[in-house]
Amino acid sequence: MFENRLKALWAQGRPAINGWLSVGNPFIAEIMAGQGYDSITIDLQHGALDYGQALPMFQALRASGVVPLARVPWNEAGSVMKVLDAGAMGVICPMINSAAEAAQFVSYLRYPPLGQRSFGPTRASFAYGGYDTGAANDQILALAMIETQAGVDNLEAIAATPGLDGLYIGPSDLTLGTRNGRLPPGFDREEPEIVELIRRIQAVCAKNGLRACLHCGEADYAARAIGWGFDLTTVSGDTRLLAMAAAASVARWRELVDGGKAAGPAGKGGC
Amino acid sequence: MFENRLKALWAQGRPAINGWLSVGNPFIAEIMAGQGYDSITIDLQHGALDYGQALPMFQALRASGVVPLARVPWNEAGSVMKVLDAGAMGVICPMINSAAEAAQFVSYLRYPPLGQRSFGPTRASFAYGGYDTGAANDQILALAMIETQAGVDNLEAIAATPGLDGLYIGPSDLTLGTRNGRLPPGFDREEPEIVELIRRIQAVCAKNGLRACLHCGEADYAARAIGWGFDLTTVSGDTRLLAMAAAASVARWRELVDGGKAAGPAGKGGC
Amino acid sequence: MFENRLKALWAQGRPAINGWLSVGNPFIAEIMAGQGYDSITIDLQHGALDYGQALPMFQALRASGVVPLARVPWNEAGSVMKVLDAGAMGVICPMINSAAEAAQFVSYLRYPPLGQRSFGPTRASFAYGGYDTGAANDQILALAMIETQAGVDNLEAIAATPGLDGLYIGPSDLTLGTRNGRLPPGFDREEPEIVELIRRIQAVCAKNGLRACLHCGEADYAARAIGWGFDLTTVSGDTRLLAMAAAASVARWRELVDGGKAAGPAGKGGC
Amino acid sequence: MFENRLKALWAQGRPAINGWLSVGNPFIAEIMAGQGYDSITIDLQHGALDYGQALPMFQALRASGVVPLARVPWNEAGSVMKVLDAGAMGVICPMINSAAEAAQFVSYLRYPPLGQRSFGPTRASFAYGGYDTGAANDQILALAMIETQAGVDNLEAIAATPGLDGLYIGPSDLTLGTRNGRLPPGFDREEPEIVELIRRIQAVCAKNGLRACLHCGEADYAARAIGWGFDLTTVSGDTRLLAMAAAASVARWRELVDGGKAAGPAGKGGC
Amino acid sequence: MFENRLKALWAQGRPAINGWLSVGNPFIAEIMAGQGYDSITIDLQHGALDYGQALPMFQALRASGVVPLARVPWNEAGSVMKVLDAGAMGVICPMINSAAEAAQFVSYLRYPPLGQRSFGPTRASFAYGGYDTGAANDQILALAMIETQAGVDNLEAIAATPGLDGLYIGPSDLTLGTRNGRLPPGFDREEPEIVELIRRIQAVCAKNGLRACLHCGEADYAARAIGWGFDLTTVSGDTRLLAMAAAASVARWRELVDGGKAAGPAGKGGC
Amino acid sequence: MFENRLKALWAQGRPAINGWLSVGNPFIAEIMAGQGYDSITIDLQHGALDYGQALPMFQALRASGVVPLARVPWNEAGSVMKVLDAGAMGVICPMINSAAEAAQFVSYLRYPPLGQRSFGPTRASFAYGGYDTGAANDQILALAMIETQAGVDNLEAIAATPGLDGLYIGPSDLTLGTRNGRLPPGFDREEPEIVELIRRIQAVCAKNGLRACLHCGEADYAARAIGWGFDLTTVSGDTRLLAMAAAASVARWRELVDGGKAAGPAGKGGC
Repeated sequence: MFENRLKALWAQGRPAINGWLSVGNPFIAEIMAGQGYDSITIDLQHGALDYGQALPMFQALRASGVVPLARVPWNEAGSVMKVLDAGAMGVICPMINSAAEAAQFVSYLRYPPLGQRSFGPTRASFAYGGYDTGAANDQILALAMIETQAGVDNLEAIAATPGLDGLYIGPSDLTLGTRNGRLPPGFDREEPEIVELIRRIQAVCAKNGLRACLHCGEADYAARAIGWGFDLTTVSGDTRLLAMAAAASVARWRELVDGGKAAGPAGKGGC
Repeated sequence: MFENRLKALWAQGRPAINGWLSVGNPFIAEIMAGQGYDSITIDLQHGALDYGQALPMFQALRASGVVPLARVPWNEAGSVMKVLDAGAMGVICPMINSAAEAAQFVSYLRYPPLGQRSFGPTRASFAYGGYDTGAANDQILALAMIETQAGVDNLEAIAATPGLDGLYIGPSDLTLGTRNGRLPPGFDREEPEIVELIRRIQAVCAKNGLRACLHCGEADYAARAIGWGFDLTTVSGDTRLLAMAAAASVARWRELVDGGKAAGPAGKGGC
Repeated sequence: MFENRLKALWAQGRPAINGWLSVGNPFIAEIMAGQGYDSITIDLQHGALDYGQALPMFQALRASGVVPLARVPWNEAGSVMKVLDAGAMGVICPMINSAAEAAQFVSYLRYPPLGQRSFGPTRASFAYGGYDTGAANDQILALAMIETQAGVDNLEAIAATPGLDGLYIGPSDLTLGTRNGRLPPGFDREEPEIVELIRRIQAVCAKNGLRACLHCGEADYAARAIGWGFDLTTVSGDTRLLAMAAAASVARWRELVDGGKAAGPAGKGGC
Repeated sequence: MFENRLKALWAQGRPAINGWLSVGNPFIAEIMAGQGYDSITIDLQHGALDYGQALPMFQALRASGVVPLARVPWNEAGSVMKVLDAGAMGVICPMINSAAEAAQFVSYLRYPPLGQRSFGPTRASFAYGGYDTGAANDQILALAMIETQAGVDNLEAIAATPGLDGLYIGPSDLTLGTRNGRLPPGFDREEPEIVELIRRIQAVCAKNGLRACLHCGEADYAARAIGWGFDLTTVSGDTRLLAMAAAASVARWRELVDGGKAAGPAGKGGC
Repeated sequence: MFENRLKALWAQGRPAINGWLSVGNPFIAEIMAGQGYDSITIDLQHGALDYGQALPMFQALRASGVVPLARVPWNEAGSVMKVLDAGAMGVICPMINSAAEAAQFVSYLRYPPLGQRSFGPTRASFAYGGYDTGAANDQILALAMIETQAGVDNLEAIAATPGLDGLYIGPSDLTLGTRNGRLPPGFDREEPEIVELIRRIQAVCAKNGLRACLHCGEADYAARAIGWGFDLTTVSGDTRLLAMAAAASVARWRELVDGGKAAGPAGKGGC
Repeated sequence: MFENRLKALWAQGRPAINGWLSVGNPFIAEIMAGQGYDSITIDLQHGALDYGQALPMFQALRASGVVPLARVPWNEAGSVMKVLDAGAMGVICPMINSAAEAAQFVSYLRYPPLGQRSFGPTRASFAYGGYDTGAANDQILALAMIETQAGVDNLEAIAATPGLDGLYIGPSDLTLGTRNGRLPPGFDREEPEIVELIRRIQAVCAKNGLRACLHCGEADYAARAIGWGFDLTTVSGDTRLLAMAAAASVARWRELVDGGKAAGPAGKGGC
């Protein structure tokens, strides 16, 4: 039987923690898969990877039982269908601005007669038992990102899209897209106007039977979001976790050894 | 001019912190290169990578100015020479058990008449200005690992090898190789017998004008080792830093959200 | 001279057998190229590969003289033009629903003034002698897939598209797209309604001077389709051929050794 | 600070020479980066590479200080944003036919409120200091290609697009797209009608404060173009430089050894 | 707990069927892993792959529960240790000619004090629970190939090597290596002299408590070998299974369509 | 029939020009294969590539009919046998210092009873018709490099090795290895002592029925070497040809545009 454990978790009223992969490497994927996440998203939008790298990463996630998700670069049929055939059990689509775009996105994930997904689940059918059109249509998650003023303006209409499973919020783009350049990008927002907006999106999800998902930087903020009613929170990701851990390790060494004297060039963590 | 900044650092009496790469991915290399390490070692022995992956990693390290080192799988001419041609400014060689093996290793790193390195620094000559046989012979570091009883027994003779620049200690293998199965592998040893052995190797280095290097798990232990006179300490590495940071992030979330309820399968950090 | 041997074959009134590649590996491509197919299609839609994997596969097909085709993920200019520059001598495009979409597809394959293909046949010009704009426009095949109700409704109009060379039928999608969920996907259909539809498409091809192509699972069905007038049949593909051969080998061994006792997990062949 | 040295060069009134990469290999990129170009373009349109190959090439260019540009396969949001996140400091977009298309292209390169670029400069933020939304919007170059009759017809309107930095001319497509098949593709055109057209585009650039860029085959022609007022000229590229140098070397040897007797099969240089 | 299911199977008195991978691709590995084999060997000797390709293949095998084995190119410390760190649960080593070579091979697979394996199971410790030195020493299989006259001459001594788990026979090399050019290479030998030799090696295994393994071409021959007392038989492999299935499919089509008229170039299956 | 066209060429008394690949990319290989070389060597010693990269390069060379050779990193059984299975029709082995080493090298290339090559020509048997043990033993070339004082001292004995086909001279290593640091590395030597040595090696080849091969930088020097009796000359290689052509192109542009004003960082061509 082909089942999506995120759906089962949510059916039990339990929230989920999602991991994030921006590095195109299957060993990183396998390491992350062993750290206790409920699901892990391979980011084909901003991640430093594309389909060619993502494929062995999906394979590396399989043994762990973690639910494999993918974010696609854009709302394109080819991109959505390819990650599904590769084994994604859910797709996060950026920049959904209207109900029409949401409906188009959903159509790419569902086999006829529900949608227009083309049949040929080449890896999925080898990787998962029971991957028929009915099970795939039933179990695969369609998650739309709200991150522009248009998306916010059309929130109710988007949320009413048949077959949509949830909304996913990226606070950086949501802020950039709606504040007219007044606020910088970043996670874990504390500005009341952004918090209100984030919670409003969650409320609309709740009203429409959708799952609400939030991209976070730290576990503490994510836990607050769960308290607000969010169903899934992403907490940081591979590049940021590694960079911060390495920087902290070097800083501690330099503090103890060099008295904190500054070292070589330092990168700056992206999202 | 082709210069090894580790040598310059040591000449100023300053110790160095080395990073460690076990993942075969150039983006991981570039991220690590920006975190403040003095040098970074690409591990072709236990790392999940070989020459094909290491090559773009050397490229990714170049812009940062971090000194690129490599650990080879074994004391083999082909392996040593290929990482040098790819741009390594120093080589760590495992399992050196005798002065003869040390001399053989050194010979692979030096052009005639000092050694038997074959000429053809294909990438190094494009990447570094002034990479002639003299500069290469002068600047490239030869670091031998002592990790067996034979290596310990022949410590003085190994340390006297002409052209050898330093000794590198991997506490896991040193412990396994000398305690007859009495103690498990691991970093940051506190057993007096192992600490004594580690410090004895450092003392032999000091006596012979060699640099002493120690593989550590945590910055605090590494700082103690610097206090003992070590010239370079490796502090953890990419896989362990990432796994521990991710596991801590998930644990914190579960503690706040789930009351610490155990999650999915957890990996166990190797070295 | 740049010539497409499929066109030559058809000009002699002979049908063709096409192989299918869903694995992103050039050695698989080279092995398949030696088994006697007239043409081989690299499937960038449902195959577990993208452009990065396809490029060395095109190279691996070259020595055999097999005609290299590609199926693109979607009717997109970038995807079509890139596989042509890589050396495809024909493109199969999924989900053509109207004459306008067919015309758009054809325009991507033809240099001006016939179409809008951008000039820069980077690999094709190294791989093939005489690859100029005239020869390319003349020899490269444009094959549109009919697999939705809209496609069937617009069949005559699509078939009349100037510059289109043929129609290609994928029975799984054709069935899913036109039976409103009443019939499951699959090859080698026996349902009279589907056979009738498949033969109708062939008849429209014949009337419009187009080549009719059918994706099949078994040689026997394909031979029947040739008898119906089809010009090219695909017969299975790499993943399915391998999976079925391996499963049969294991089953035979278990039957002889274990009395047919069931073994480990078994995958299920997709298309 | 995140700065684009091409902009600085142009601000000083100096023209630039751009290199071109069509081979998907980071060592080729590193070699080319050391030959003295001001900028180098990774060609994802006609180059034999895609994002997966381009990423380590961007890394290989970093140390040299050469300005990394990319040409995308088509005017698509996903393609443009991914090369920017990977570190491109400018994007060349093919086949811009109207002001609307130009505006759409520009919007993909600029963060809100100037455009619709999504935030997540995963590699760029590690590779470059000071990569914030303001600096990125200010420093990244948007270069549109004029290569069809429609593009020429709408030249003035395209050139007036807010946020566009320059026009880039590919003489092959410009010729194919505007001469109705009367003239073949190729660089370094001498036909008065094409020269006039090329110079007219440059004049429109000058009038609109845009940079004019021309793809050339030989340095001598490029120098003439600089004399006409062009701000940047590409002079050949990796595949053509290599093929011509190798062919010349073989021809010289055969002339001296064999009296010029023809050898094996010879490729034909593409663009 | 880290367990080798081959050992468990053998402990129950049951024979095993082993699959074989010569193509360097993780999707092929995942497909093969689903066909019911008890174990699958990644062939780094004659397979068209090396460590870089093998790593994601080990990952792709993990979810299936199939026991992952590797054949190394030669009896080299670096090669053996790297495949173990990558997750191999057993190693087949070619060309073991003497007890000394066998002992050397075994030493590479065992941690001290049993052998000289260096500690750093980078992927294995993430992939498998309980991978400590004791479990690894206990569960990992050391399989030596007998394939030369010297190996046959020293059969008893080799079989007595402490820590060796079994002998593996490659009939091609065994024949070439012992018949002085009188017989060609090939599987599934029927010559009495070769059958006798194969059975003699099995008998020596049985006497020494070793497992006897035979490389076969067809299930029927393999079943006979199981009847002779062999514990594991390999039955063909990915390249041969695919090539034969594809060739048969094309031949059937041509027979039905063309009356068996010969087609394009045909490859010849290797081992 | 499996034939080595270099042997056929030499049998006709004609010399050969060999190309050289140091970049690990199959498109570079395919481009070079079309420029008229008689043979092309993939350099696994100093080239920026290993087996994983070399495999698709062998495939890319196949269609051209150029004879594919390989240089291995060292005189190792595993390395030699793997490149043969991948399709090399000849192997160049560095650093042969004695007749024993030469004999060992030759043994790796020949199937029993002539040598100890293990049977399993996985790709070779698919790529070439008639690849049986006899043809392989007969057609594959064994070329030993003389590049140390020991090699020179044992020249006659090495040249008398049964089964050896030729000697290959790398002037850089020969100079470094025999002049005690008095002369720098480099091609196309004019020092009388080196010319004399090079010609002496050729004379020994001629006396022993071996082919004499010389690595050269320029066609003119190579032609002189052919005049001295050499049978094959390598003339430069991919990295150097590209770097020199690109540098010359930039220099010409700067001369015309900038009056030769110096540009960015310049790489330095290796061998």
